[in-house]
Amino acid sequence: MDLPWYITGLCEGEACFMVSFSLRKKLKLGIEVRPSFSLSQHKRNLELVKLVRSYFGVGAIRFSRRDRNYKYEVRSVSDLMAAVVPHFLKYPLISHKHEDFERFAEVSRLVYENKHRSRAGLERIIELASQMNPAGKRKYHKGELLRLLGKVKE
Amino acid sequence: MDLPWYITGLCEGEACFMVSFSLRKKLKLGIEVRPSFSLSQHKRNLELVKLVRSYFGVGAIRFSRRDRNYKYEVRSVSDLMAAVVPHFLKYPLISHKHEDFERFAEVSRLVYENKHRSRAGLERIIELASQMNPAGKRKYHKGELLRLLGKVKE
Repeated sequence: MDLPWYITGLCEGEACFMVSFSLRKKLKLGIEVRPSFSLSQHKRNLELVKLVRSYFGVGAIRFSRRDRNYKYEVRSVSDLMAAVVPHFLKYPLISHKHEDFERFAEVSRLVYENKHRSRAGLERIIELASQMNPAGKRKYHKGELLRLLGKVKE
Repeated sequence: MDLPWYITGLCEGEACFMVSFSLRKKLKLGIEVRPSFSLSQHKRNLELVKLVRSYFGVGAIRFSRRDRNYKYEVRSVSDLMAAVVPHFLKYPLISHKHEDFERFAEVSRLVYENKHRSRAGLERIIELASQMNPAGKRKYHKGELLRLLGKVKE
């Protein structure tokens, strides 16, 4: 089988690119950025989740009791840059999700290159994240993050 | 791109194999069997739905106002046998959905060969459908269909 294109097709429907933010007083700019890639499946499809984990060769699988789902997730930015981003550059998504991926890839690259530690870099990341299709509720909205960032003295 | 494997990956998450039943007094056995294959997407992904329609070359797309979804659906048994079943035989699903497909393919074949017009054939179809993962609520359950079938004089 042509596993890479199967994986892209599967991810078209099932995967999620996300950029989340947390407030962290310890950080210079006060805002932590966390890009993550994930795919969840009903517990009967654990084998499928394992296949995806094994294909990318990075990330972890955990069981969510609440949803009775297995969730495969990659949170490490170097793993995202080494395995996830290159896959979708070579075997691109077709749907609307492709645009999410492009923003996600740029955020991952900015974080990988430590650009999230400068005000301009972090503002760019907040802007990109705000253009992504939210998976559920956003914890912090663009305006709020930019307002918090504006208060920080560099 | 390797479209067939992309399609299988996409369908792994997004497609639905269904066998539904209706009571029809006009029919000799009183029960109509309708196998169908479908894939629904949010309206922003119409292009993706069109790609799937164009790949299979059969079926139709309709818009559901209630869900704000485009639904691609193949209901014609000869189209199912000519395009959908052969695709998943050649480029098989991996997950639990593969078992649904196998039952679905057998039901489609039985209907295609007019076996649903005999009591034994229809009983076999009802049995296979009862083993499939229901997409939402079933209108009629196995026991009820078999009981109705038992009352019919051939």
